[in-house]
Amino acid sequence: MTGLVSLVGAGPGDPELLTLKAVRRLGEADLVLYDALVEASTLEFAAKARRFFVGKRAGRQAITQEAINRLMIREARRGHRIVRLKCGDPFVFGRGGEEALALAAAGVPCEVIPGISSALAAPLLAGIPVTHRGLAAAFLVVSGHAESAFGPVLGSLEPGSATVVVLMGMANQLSIRHHMLARGWAPRTPAAILLGASRPGAEEWHGTLETLGSDGQQAAGDLPGILVIGAVAGLAGILSLQDAGQDTFSGGRRASAAT
Amino acid sequence: MTGLVSLVGAGPGDPELLTLKAVRRLGEADLVLYDALVEASTLEFAAKARRFFVGKRAGRQAITQEAINRLMIREARRGHRIVRLKCGDPFVFGRGGEEALALAAAGVPCEVIPGISSALAAPLLAGIPVTHRGLAAAFLVVSGHAESAFGPVLGSLEPGSATVVVLMGMANQLSIRHHMLARGWAPRTPAAILLGASRPGAEEWHGTLETLGSDGQQAAGDLPGILVIGAVAGLAGILSLQDAGQDTFSGGRRASAAT
Repeated sequence: MTGLVSLVGAGPGDPELLTLKAVRRLGEADLVLYDALVEASTLEFAAKARRFFVGKRAGRQAITQEAINRLMIREARRGHRIVRLKCGDPFVFGRGGEEALALAAAGVPCEVIPGISSALAAPLLAGIPVTHRGLAAAFLVVSGHAESAFGPVLGSLEPGSATVVVLMGMANQLSIRHHMLARGWAPRTPAAILLGASRPGAEEWHGTLETLGSDGQQAAGDLPGILVIGAVAGLAGILSLQDAGQDTFSGGRRASAAT
Repeated sequence: MTGLVSLVGAGPGDPELLTLKAVRRLGEADLVLYDALVEASTLEFAAKARRFFVGKRAGRQAITQEAINRLMIREARRGHRIVRLKCGDPFVFGRGGEEALALAAAGVPCEVIPGISSALAAPLLAGIPVTHRGLAAAFLVVSGHAESAFGPVLGSLEPGSATVVVLMGMANQLSIRHHMLARGWAPRTPAAILLGASRPGAEEWHGTLETLGSDGQQAAGDLPGILVIGAVAGLAGILSLQDAGQDTFSGGRRASAAT
């Protein structure tokens, strides 16, 4: 008897942005392994499961990736149903592919359930469509963690040809700005920084490429930050005026902090 | 008394990939305006709503965009709750931004609820992580509808620096291949074509950039097709062997048609 490991996307934070399938798998789970930034109320869907935090706390991993893999494999072989709950989408950063490969190598049944990625939902909740007729027919999502990764992408992409969304780039704003200006992007290209989209305490900054990183914008506490650069970021001012229907939790849309 | 228009993402097809919030808004709706490719069972969540098809049939729009906007504005002013149901995510192609702007201009309360985008979910369900450590720290999503849109993007992006996902590009495979090879992408770069991900009858083709478009792969019927080009597409063969836990509906993962 072998169990099942479900790599499940928890979405950007708001539990209402979970999929029906994610909720079903949480309800069936014997064991949930969850990352940092998964909201406590999301875990309540896993009523009968043991729940283990396996993410980062104060920059340090609670347990190693190898230990997480071993734990999933062992529990699945005992016939248990495991949910590996990841922020956003399991295959957008976050090592979901590596975990799936480890499970495949061990012959453990595994499925992957997509989640709402913050890369798209954070702009949306700020009133920024990543594509828009006449403004953007493409968007690029890139890790801002290491210049060796974003340098070649931002240093080559034709200026203005795509909306640029940077995850994990809060610390490298100046370097990102430098690469894009050097490539020939217009200094006045609209830019936004979106903190904790869909979560309580969400914040936004709106400016331009040439002012990105110079106002000392930093992540507030542990909220994840996302950069959006491109003409579409200029629509936020219009669309964020609409604030109807937002619930207690998903108060992601609010007036611009600065323009 | 003014109602509310919710632009709602229906996800890639499988009703279980709707968010809880989408299901709630459907249940509350007086009127649902839905696009082509929205599954019939998705509409069953809108038990008390009138439902109108406003998408394309046989390549022709059922009603004009202006008529859709007027209808939403009129019904909202009557105090009704309207769900504008769009495939995938409302702000990834599909003119969601334009509809939101029209509603804002009319002063009609509007909200946007993100959905699972096929741009990410189709690769995921085929066992392709759009990002993967050592293979891709970025991904690009581009419309393959017009060369004037994808040409500048694919003609500039540093080869191999990002996973390339093309929506609406089934008819332009040869042109897409040409732009990427001319830019210096390796001819043997893995490529995949994913048809109708998460829907009944989903199909996959796996090959390389240099064979893209030469096998006469075309969209099967009305199923939407998505192209994925990049080293990560080579992982599909490993990850698609895992087929556990897939339900009747979400049978998106199946063995490669050809390698």
